[in-house]
Amino acid sequence: MSDVSGFSLNGFSLNQATIKYATLDQAVAATVDAGIPSIGLWREPVAEFGLAASAALVGSAGLRVSSLCRGGFLTTPDRRAALDDNRRAIDEAATLGAPTLVLVVGGLPEGSRDLIGARERVRDAIGELAADATAAGISLAIEALHPMYVTDRAVISTLGQAIDIAEQFDARAVGVVVDTFHVFWDPGVLESIARAGAQGRIASYQVCDWITPIAADPLLSRGYPGDGLIDFGPITRAVVAAGYRGDIECEIFNQTVWDAPFDEVARQSRARFESVIEPHL
Amino acid sequence: MSDVSGFSLNGFSLNQATIKYATLDQAVAATVDAGIPSIGLWREPVAEFGLAASAALVGSAGLRVSSLCRGGFLTTPDRRAALDDNRRAIDEAATLGAPTLVLVVGGLPEGSRDLIGARERVRDAIGELAADATAAGISLAIEALHPMYVTDRAVISTLGQAIDIAEQFDARAVGVVVDTFHVFWDPGVLESIARAGAQGRIASYQVCDWITPIAADPLLSRGYPGDGLIDFGPITRAVVAAGYRGDIECEIFNQTVWDAPFDEVARQSRARFESVIEPHL
Repeated sequence: MSDVSGFSLNGFSLNQATIKYATLDQAVAATVDAGIPSIGLWREPVAEFGLAASAALVGSAGLRVSSLCRGGFLTTPDRRAALDDNRRAIDEAATLGAPTLVLVVGGLPEGSRDLIGARERVRDAIGELAADATAAGISLAIEALHPMYVTDRAVISTLGQAIDIAEQFDARAVGVVVDTFHVFWDPGVLESIARAGAQGRIASYQVCDWITPIAADPLLSRGYPGDGLIDFGPITRAVVAAGYRGDIECEIFNQTVWDAPFDEVARQSRARFESVIEPHL
Repeated sequence: MSDVSGFSLNGFSLNQATIKYATLDQAVAATVDAGIPSIGLWREPVAEFGLAASAALVGSAGLRVSSLCRGGFLTTPDRRAALDDNRRAIDEAATLGAPTLVLVVGGLPEGSRDLIGARERVRDAIGELAADATAAGISLAIEALHPMYVTDRAVISTLGQAIDIAEQFDARAVGVVVDTFHVFWDPGVLESIARAGAQGRIASYQVCDWITPIAADPLLSRGYPGDGLIDFGPITRAVVAAGYRGDIECEIFNQTVWDAPFDEVARQSRARFESVIEPHL
């Protein structure tokens, strides 16, 4: 969908994790060949290809960069190293022209059962990073992860919790991610989306489906929109009604998808965006 | 712990699912031999042993029955059959002297993605069953299940949601279960426990631990209190502060536990209750 100026609204973006085994240049090629205007990048393949070279390649390919994944892991006892690494990630996002750095905040530190303390550390660390984000013109996007990852990946489990932290800071510096896989189960999700939108804090909208039975590796239980049990209509309409105008990323962790040819995955992702998501924009 | 009259407060109960492969008489024997005063029964082994015979055996063994598991599965299209089955379960609970029938409310019906509609069906069905529960002197206990089971087991994922439904009915007829495995991740869990307690609606407190990495069958990722990542102190103190005086069940779904000798599991469950839970009572 485009507005009258031709500026893209809620365009489609392929998150690079969906074609996990592609090098950066392969990912850019698959994205361009599938007619997709935007890409969500990951730090590791960017580093392998080189930061400056990645920025140049994406730019010459005419792609927008919808986000950089990922910063975060702020609950570690080695706080200084975590902050330093996140500052590097902020700089990388700026170099790549990504408006948003996605934060997976981290789980419980080894040997700890203290969720409340870990959540406080996340809040404090984001407080230290907010000024760096502002200076770089980057939005830190707190991603609530599904509660099944609460101990090992993210002690922030709901969109409401993410907003509770984000709203303590400038809305341009700290926002939230809405990822269907992680939040669809939440009885308060539509209200939380509206709340985030009213504050101008929806920094990223990511779509993928919830597949059951849950995969043996529960990280990989995601699928193309339409293959699982998520009703994308209400969430997508709520995100748009809340004022989100950025690109919409398809981010799938799924071994079968990862094992398929990159160009096939890119085309299928775009097709599903058009058939499952776009009707609600 | 006992009050001055000698009436047991927050005693320990072995939920029969922890020794899943035991017949009812084997479960009763293991419970008695371990010096455990209370048992949580399941309908299937009760039916196999015979309802009247089960009631007689438990009574002659001097055991309290802390709950009967389980009713629910109220989201099925065959509403009439579901209601009939739950009415039978209410009668069974009354015959067994169980104060509480635990409800696992059900997931999405086959082919549906409508969580909101499924939740409305749960509410309506509980409304139809409340009078039966009152007549039988049984409390229906809505169990919020971890959000990873939202599509296939229970569309009620948080204690707050369970209370939202329960509070529409008489507190003696409809209460909630607090199960540590299912609710520990919830940033609002302590407030929800207090809210349930203020309404007199905590009908059951079940303890088991959260083990990572999540088991390949995610139903089985539970462990003895102390073996995982749950901090039992705050939740247990909140349940007691909220006025819960019933028995505390240990309910573990774990293949290794199921494969161990019943008497060993009963003794270990009691030992963990005494070392991990009781200090907070």
